[in-house]
Amino acid sequence: MKHFLSNLSLNTRQTAIDSLMDNAATTVPDPVYFSIGLPNRELLPKRQLHEVYNSIFNLKSDSHFNYGGSKGIAPLLSTISKRENISQDYIMITTGNTQGVELSARLVLNTGDTIAFESYTYAIAHSLTHQYSLNALEIPVEADGMNIEALEQLLQKTAIKALYIIPNANNPTGTTLSLKKRKKLVDLAYQYNFLIIEDDPYRDLIFDTRFPSLFELDPYKEKVIYLYSFSKTIAPTLRTGFILAHPFYIKKLEQFKQTTDSCTSPLNQMVVNEMIKTEDWDNSLEKQRAFYETKKDLTKKFLSKMADMYGWTSNEPAGGLFYWVDTHAGDVTEWLRFAANSGVIFIPGSAFALDDQTNTKFRLCYSYVDNQEMIKGFTRLEESFLEWQNQNTTKNIKKIQQNI
Amino acid sequence: MKHFLSNLSLNTRQTAIDSLMDNAATTVPDPVYFSIGLPNRELLPKRQLHEVYNSIFNLKSDSHFNYGGSKGIAPLLSTISKRENISQDYIMITTGNTQGVELSARLVLNTGDTIAFESYTYAIAHSLTHQYSLNALEIPVEADGMNIEALEQLLQKTAIKALYIIPNANNPTGTTLSLKKRKKLVDLAYQYNFLIIEDDPYRDLIFDTRFPSLFELDPYKEKVIYLYSFSKTIAPTLRTGFILAHPFYIKKLEQFKQTTDSCTSPLNQMVVNEMIKTEDWDNSLEKQRAFYETKKDLTKKFLSKMADMYGWTSNEPAGGLFYWVDTHAGDVTEWLRFAANSGVIFIPGSAFALDDQTNTKFRLCYSYVDNQEMIKGFTRLEESFLEWQNQNTTKNIKKIQQNI
Repeated sequence: MKHFLSNLSLNTRQTAIDSLMDNAATTVPDPVYFSIGLPNRELLPKRQLHEVYNSIFNLKSDSHFNYGGSKGIAPLLSTISKRENISQDYIMITTGNTQGVELSARLVLNTGDTIAFESYTYAIAHSLTHQYSLNALEIPVEADGMNIEALEQLLQKTAIKALYIIPNANNPTGTTLSLKKRKKLVDLAYQYNFLIIEDDPYRDLIFDTRFPSLFELDPYKEKVIYLYSFSKTIAPTLRTGFILAHPFYIKKLEQFKQTTDSCTSPLNQMVVNEMIKTEDWDNSLEKQRAFYETKKDLTKKFLSKMADMYGWTSNEPAGGLFYWVDTHAGDVTEWLRFAANSGVIFIPGSAFALDDQTNTKFRLCYSYVDNQEMIKGFTRLEESFLEWQNQNTTKNIKKIQQNI
Repeated sequence: MKHFLSNLSLNTRQTAIDSLMDNAATTVPDPVYFSIGLPNRELLPKRQLHEVYNSIFNLKSDSHFNYGGSKGIAPLLSTISKRENISQDYIMITTGNTQGVELSARLVLNTGDTIAFESYTYAIAHSLTHQYSLNALEIPVEADGMNIEALEQLLQKTAIKALYIIPNANNPTGTTLSLKKRKKLVDLAYQYNFLIIEDDPYRDLIFDTRFPSLFELDPYKEKVIYLYSFSKTIAPTLRTGFILAHPFYIKKLEQFKQTTDSCTSPLNQMVVNEMIKTEDWDNSLEKQRAFYETKKDLTKKFLSKMADMYGWTSNEPAGGLFYWVDTHAGDVTEWLRFAANSGVIFIPGSAFALDDQTNTKFRLCYSYVDNQEMIKGFTRLEESFLEWQNQNTTKNIKKIQQNI
């Protein structure tokens, strides 16, 4: 067929996660999905959501059934303005953080521009690199987040246009950027003139003290575009988040938004507003944090055993949904086949690497699976890991025997 | 402030409608909005929607509260497949037709490519022209839609990559493309190798017999990308529509969709599916058509009087929401100030022209305003039109006097 693909289309490809997961089907009847980076089903506020929908259907006004302005509906803008303590000029509602990332990229990046990422990071961010033919650089990550010294050394040699970072409870590394590093990063953005895209969907799931955002630390609000989503704390289906940025950028983003999806569903925005406008919301977040911390602790216990027995390493996350684990034992995509056979799924580290390079790390998401299932999943992880390692040993022995 | 706008950003600007409407504020307490291209409030299926939400909240499964696949949720894909009589391989759900247009543009168009539009057409389509720095051409429109001979003459001289068309009850011209022209247009797409973006949100509001879509007429499904939205027939707030296209294109569009907004709200998709899956939906569409036809007839009566008295011309629409009227009396943006003062708003034709050129035409949308209000609006249109014309006459007399 004679086709007409644009350069953008030709550069677009399936995400590494999708291709990997295509190969991780399991026939076990009760699979345990440590792969799924979703809020836990128990936390879905179904009863409250139903009440909120009922209350909205009982309102006299029907304006929220129509189109809304591209910037967002007035009540939600007002609530976010109060909660984030910033003028509405700095706010635009988005159809989730995926749209936030995409619009931010379109806002500032031209083909061939250079963007820096954490190594490792969210796969959708990498997809944009392919689509827009960007030069992408990876900055190593330490226990307290991005290695800022490595970034500074890079900046001394190479100009970058933008830096994409998930500073809280990073997906996939689980790391949180320290306060000192945050301050330094904002300084560097002014010194070397680049824009920070701060993707922050996990901030409300930080178990203890939360650091100020890069956006809050930016004195002139000129170097940070801040993205938040309600997908992790209410429900992904509402497809609602927001951008905080300088009004100069917000005005442009509104124009993009108008041609992108016209507006985020006003009804969904109303629902979010009803959910977050009172103190109940703060209580709900408190409960969510406690819930995930218990799961993190369960996982920590398992990983501590695996560290002792097999030399696995990992950093304890300060919040969020993910543990990032290094097995130091070979290409984990091989292990994934054994794991899937025994009924447990995880995501290999290569899914979060810019060049999909195989590696010994994997992401263990503890949010979605019930506690009882987690225990079962841990057993399966250990058993399938041993199976994989034994097979490798057998292979090696065979090789040695052949060479005798 | 030192900023970092991409070329896309620099080329993006406010739509002509927005700039025009900024100047059309009215202080009259009961304004009549012939400008608003929305479904009528009486047709909003609020009670059914409330029932549907209740039934969804009573389901055991909660999967529709999570993310869904980028292609769309299974039940809605299945219903659309049945209703459109086409395999699911040819379908992707969109966040409304705005997203459909934008993704189609990104799919095939590179900077500098040539795209053809009807003169006049939907303003968002023009916005993409600016954003992507396209060469845009306008093809004149006749009572039975685009002048296909004019298109063919153009194609003999100029290669185009894509053609954007609203074949049914066009926004703003109200025209519907004849069957003969549809067949010829598809032939031309094969002969001259261009892609048709068929934007079809008004097809279910065609009062009498509907012609087959360009997509249906395309024998190999290689030259038409078809866009439908439920915004006009259920409610804009659901932000749900679909694309029909060759599976080759659908696969690429799914990849774009994944990085654009991940998925259309699965809950909203569920709601649409519940609304359209039974025969009640066909009955609802039948009622909507009758409702709008009454409003069209009311408007026709008014316009016939204006034709007799002031020489206005217009084509009777075969469906949809819009009458397109030529006053033959000067730049109607001047008249809009008089009209706004007397409490009636319409959209000047320049809002739908590629280069915003001033002109004597305007769009009268009869869908949103109640019948009683319409009568009031018509009176205000006539009065303010006379006021404007008299002032012009006075000005001319003054000029003549000054020249004596």
